[in-house]
Amino acid sequence: MHLPKTIQIGGKPIAGGKFPLICAPLVGRTFDKLIAELDEVLPKKPDVLEWRVDFFEDIGDTTAVIAAATAIKNKAGKIPLLFTRRCVIEGGEKIALSEAQVISLYRAVCASNCIDLIDYEMANGPANIAQVRASACDNGVLLVLSFHNFSFTPGLQTLTEKFLLAEQLGADVAKVAVMPRDLDDVLTLLNATRQASKKLRIPLISMSMGPLGAITRMAGSVFGSAMSFAVGAGCSAPGQLPIENLNTVLEILDTSMGGF
Amino acid sequence: MHLPKTIQIGGKPIAGGKFPLICAPLVGRTFDKLIAELDEVLPKKPDVLEWRVDFFEDIGDTTAVIAAATAIKNKAGKIPLLFTRRCVIEGGEKIALSEAQVISLYRAVCASNCIDLIDYEMANGPANIAQVRASACDNGVLLVLSFHNFSFTPGLQTLTEKFLLAEQLGADVAKVAVMPRDLDDVLTLLNATRQASKKLRIPLISMSMGPLGAITRMAGSVFGSAMSFAVGAGCSAPGQLPIENLNTVLEILDTSMGGF
Repeated sequence: MHLPKTIQIGGKPIAGGKFPLICAPLVGRTFDKLIAELDEVLPKKPDVLEWRVDFFEDIGDTTAVIAAATAIKNKAGKIPLLFTRRCVIEGGEKIALSEAQVISLYRAVCASNCIDLIDYEMANGPANIAQVRASACDNGVLLVLSFHNFSFTPGLQTLTEKFLLAEQLGADVAKVAVMPRDLDDVLTLLNATRQASKKLRIPLISMSMGPLGAITRMAGSVFGSAMSFAVGAGCSAPGQLPIENLNTVLEILDTSMGGF
Repeated sequence: MHLPKTIQIGGKPIAGGKFPLICAPLVGRTFDKLIAELDEVLPKKPDVLEWRVDFFEDIGDTTAVIAAATAIKNKAGKIPLLFTRRCVIEGGEKIALSEAQVISLYRAVCASNCIDLIDYEMANGPANIAQVRASACDNGVLLVLSFHNFSFTPGLQTLTEKFLLAEQLGADVAKVAVMPRDLDDVLTLLNATRQASKKLRIPLISMSMGPLGAITRMAGSVFGSAMSFAVGAGCSAPGQLPIENLNTVLEILDTSMGGF
């Protein structure tokens, strides 16, 4: 039997347990651009929104960040909001904040009651993660601990252990995104996803990036990935499909696998 | 680079090198039913037609078989016709012919100039295969040597060797179709397909059957499978998608992977 682990907020699975969830990134650089982006994304009915705050010009102004998050949350209604600062080496934009300042920002945003999940990179180390985790836990925010490699795909064992490490460090959701250099790498990511989905107690998210890895964005859920990132208006990582196309493939996949 | 091996007839790749080819099975039990089935299938524009002659009530009457194959070929125009007797243990229908009679039938059909490819199971052994291969070679018909396991999925090494064995035995195309018991088995089939596609000099076809394996019918081509069987009118094996759905997924996959 296929018993995928769903991502739950307040004990209830997001979008009624839909598997996988479709998450649309928001990458606007200003408040006005974010709101315009949201107007384009919302009609496509994503299950989750991810605000990639590293794209936001005013990231250094905590009040502006909270005001923007609040505006997004108000427009998004019941759609959960994932708040993410992606650092440069893991595929994000360059920002002027120190890691301590980022952690303060996460703390303030968690306390603002306008976000549902945060993403923090495991590479930041256990001490930083513990602080971010405390901010999340104190405010009922889910913690996604993530690992990205935009250069290559580590081996099967390394990838499987990244998922397990996220759980060990207190994540509510484990995420692994890696760049394939060939189709063997794409299969390695799918194999690691399957292995991890059998071992983990928490839900996981995985993808192989770029054109080569596109199949993992469509079919990763078959092997245990609980969420796929897709384009509503702007793209936040290479290989993301338009939401409409992902929905089409997932519907056909669901029909085809209906018997199991 | 992705340089998949295409199936070629007379030195030209079928359907201009389309990858994967979509093959629609014909499973009518009588001449009239076959023709009616063909009327339903042809508007869906499959790249190849497979006549599963083990479904044909008059399989014991070589003249009737050749008459039906000729009628199919005439209606199908330029669409290549694959002629297949599938034996019971590999998922076929029960027939009254001995293996020697089947080999005679293959010989007569190859000589009739109304088919383009034949499928013969490797399990029939080297001596039988050599006879069928001679009939194919003498008449410019392509030989698909196949392995089916409707009960379970053998291990990665066994599967990879089945593809290699087909090449060793003189196949023009190697085919492996197996039944998964869990999602690990589905990944094993994809891994074997990828491994074999790097090793073989001939094109290959693979699938994991049933609802669990449906993803391999959609995405097998990414990892090297040159053909996917899909339903035009009737289904010949579990897990086959309707042609329309397969086309939709393949178009989205092609767009998504376009950059590579």
